[in-house]
Amino acid sequence: MPTITSVEVEDVRFPTSRTADGSDAMNKDGDYSAAYVVLRTDGTAADGTPLAGHGLTFTIGRGTDVVALAARHQAETLVGRDVEELAADMGRTYRDLTSDSQMRWLGPEKGVVHLSLAAVLNATWDLAARRADKPLWRLLTDMTPEQLVDVADLRYLSDVLTRDDALAILRAQEPTKAERVARLERTGYPVYTTSAGWLGYDDAKLRRLCQEAVDAGYGHIKLKVGASLSDDVRRLAIARDVIGPDRKLMIDANQVWDVPQAIEWVGELARFDPLWIEEPTSPDDVLGHAAVRSAVAPVGVATGEHCHNRVMFKQFFQAGAIDYCQLDTGRLASINEIVSVLLLAAKFGVPVCPHAGGVGLCEMVQHVSVLDYVAVAGDLTGRVTEYVDHLHEHFTDPCVVADTGDGAGYVLPSLPGYSTRMREESVARFRFPDGAAWSAA
Amino acid sequence: MPTITSVEVEDVRFPTSRTADGSDAMNKDGDYSAAYVVLRTDGTAADGTPLAGHGLTFTIGRGTDVVALAARHQAETLVGRDVEELAADMGRTYRDLTSDSQMRWLGPEKGVVHLSLAAVLNATWDLAARRADKPLWRLLTDMTPEQLVDVADLRYLSDVLTRDDALAILRAQEPTKAERVARLERTGYPVYTTSAGWLGYDDAKLRRLCQEAVDAGYGHIKLKVGASLSDDVRRLAIARDVIGPDRKLMIDANQVWDVPQAIEWVGELARFDPLWIEEPTSPDDVLGHAAVRSAVAPVGVATGEHCHNRVMFKQFFQAGAIDYCQLDTGRLASINEIVSVLLLAAKFGVPVCPHAGGVGLCEMVQHVSVLDYVAVAGDLTGRVTEYVDHLHEHFTDPCVVADTGDGAGYVLPSLPGYSTRMREESVARFRFPDGAAWSAA
Repeated sequence: MPTITSVEVEDVRFPTSRTADGSDAMNKDGDYSAAYVVLRTDGTAADGTPLAGHGLTFTIGRGTDVVALAARHQAETLVGRDVEELAADMGRTYRDLTSDSQMRWLGPEKGVVHLSLAAVLNATWDLAARRADKPLWRLLTDMTPEQLVDVADLRYLSDVLTRDDALAILRAQEPTKAERVARLERTGYPVYTTSAGWLGYDDAKLRRLCQEAVDAGYGHIKLKVGASLSDDVRRLAIARDVIGPDRKLMIDANQVWDVPQAIEWVGELARFDPLWIEEPTSPDDVLGHAAVRSAVAPVGVATGEHCHNRVMFKQFFQAGAIDYCQLDTGRLASINEIVSVLLLAAKFGVPVCPHAGGVGLCEMVQHVSVLDYVAVAGDLTGRVTEYVDHLHEHFTDPCVVADTGDGAGYVLPSLPGYSTRMREESVARFRFPDGAAWSAA
Repeated sequence: MPTITSVEVEDVRFPTSRTADGSDAMNKDGDYSAAYVVLRTDGTAADGTPLAGHGLTFTIGRGTDVVALAARHQAETLVGRDVEELAADMGRTYRDLTSDSQMRWLGPEKGVVHLSLAAVLNATWDLAARRADKPLWRLLTDMTPEQLVDVADLRYLSDVLTRDDALAILRAQEPTKAERVARLERTGYPVYTTSAGWLGYDDAKLRRLCQEAVDAGYGHIKLKVGASLSDDVRRLAIARDVIGPDRKLMIDANQVWDVPQAIEWVGELARFDPLWIEEPTSPDDVLGHAAVRSAVAPVGVATGEHCHNRVMFKQFFQAGAIDYCQLDTGRLASINEIVSVLLLAAKFGVPVCPHAGGVGLCEMVQHVSVLDYVAVAGDLTGRVTEYVDHLHEHFTDPCVVADTGDGAGYVLPSLPGYSTRMREESVARFRFPDGAAWSAA
């Protein structure tokens, strides 16, 4: 019976601000970072290596130590826990980790303590999947509807989604899950790229990267907007020129506008036929998004990477405020809360197009999108998951995007776990502030 | 020209869980705590003592170190700043402290980094008031409408409150401010007490404390509910029996219910004629509160102590979701964000009844309520500010509640500052984990 023997929490930062990778109108100089959690055990994985769980949340530099400190408090409560018991009842594992009312006060269910909780819970899910010797998407899609609902946190949702509602959604997909797995194994899960359009890139680099994306089979490309209207018009014209009228173009303002300004600005950019405007205003402003959505249609409204919990997503759906749900695997409290949001989205018929990029988010969202298609939504219509081609080399099981003839897609992960294990040499090199990448800077 | 020379951030915890003070249905064993910030300067206050600024945010035990770490990062950016310049443009001081996009990512504007920001900004306001040799309420009510609007953070609010709207609200109150100051100097600002009704108190203690509250001139008493319906019925019957039919009784569920359960439970308690049900469900659930409100009327709905920023309050007002706005001086980003919420509340005609209790919240809210009455709302109708009789002895200028014949009220503070300075011996004794109160435990 393996037991969790120790936890390690690392503050890992990559100096991405030096190249403007990841730059947008709100975040001009982020250093892509992670609070990274490892749960060590005295057990052995199926391949003979030591059994451990790895999880992270994505941050952008300063303050990662604050998240790491919170994660350490939360993760330390797991030391001594039996791995079989923990993995057998992941709903209870979640409730144990969220039951500390003193830590809860610091959110509740938002901000640093929720980010850190995501990192810790992601590590427990990686551990559970490694123990089962399955990729996480397989562990989850092998569950019965009852097992999956037992994992989900349905608290505060019963006015729109009861346990029975949730079971009905999952039971409807149950008989045909294998067909959808087979399809994804053939085609991959559809992706779009944000790599071309960071705000800090010049026009020549933008044009070149758009062309490379087209050549690689991408049918969707996203650009950052919101700092200067004239720059946005020029950049969108370049992008549309390269990708042609049929491929989809998305735009992302990263929260820089008030509601009236969002409506006016998107009105000016509508002639480039964007599929969606992402984060037009404060991520907390459900009613503001609803107002933007009704004003800018047929341009869609997307948000979610800063949507902090299932209660906020519930309201985005209730208010008819968004066309696309961009949940984030480092911001929601791991699979337990993600399953709830997938269920809510299915109930309201809103496609889930997860946020990715950053550090390790692509590695995680591929599992979530497969779960959504196979067991919850059962549909790919309107779905496309974000992909950014940065920092994958720091993971032992990096995500792979390939064009199998159906457009670019995430190739289904085949190794056990949540794809969240970082290379030890990367952790050592980029650990802040003592890793060589920082101490030599 | 005094300069900020250093910052100190302390993790101070009081072992209140040992007596069940502060116990409620969600938080059974809180240790009332504070992340406490001191900004040291090389200047001298009007009374000849060293000039410093003191600020805090309220927490309930574990994780206070996480908030303190975040506050340290934020406060350290103030070292070297000229105090005159800082105090002369508190809008800029706020923008400087909120402009770090890397730290912003960890909220944004919520959770630990917003709590810590509140502590740091509260210290800057205490410093500004001490430098001006005025209690903070006086510094603020002496400002012109333009000065007060320049302090406020109106970002993300312009769909319902423009700068011109804000100026119009303040200008309407400007000519009669002195009359209202004179009135409050006579009567104090009306208060209610929560000290009687903590969930961990037995029936005999509840009855005795209710009687003592009546004897002390309180016209409003609040009880915690939500753990057991039969207990709630019995306790409310006791309270109503002691206070009689005319005094107001409020109930507080501290977020334990889902929306349908809240509606049902409050329906059962309606016969005790509660003035409001506080925190019936998740503090993030604007639409849920609106549903509860329309179902339980004429019982009012109150929330705010966990409402994390002005964008959330904007929506509570837009959706007609609350009858009482219970903003919190340790959770909003100090006066800069509080002024915005007071303006929004005035625009929508919702009375502000600030949350208090905890550690130091009573000391702060008295300044805010005076500001609201004198300069913003200009009205006391439906207003009553919370008071809890715990932990005031740890402050150098503790709040004072007295019955001047008009019922119990906060006596207007007369000493310079925000009343946020803790006694040095208290900080030393209750500092976690090395203070004597903890190391001896």
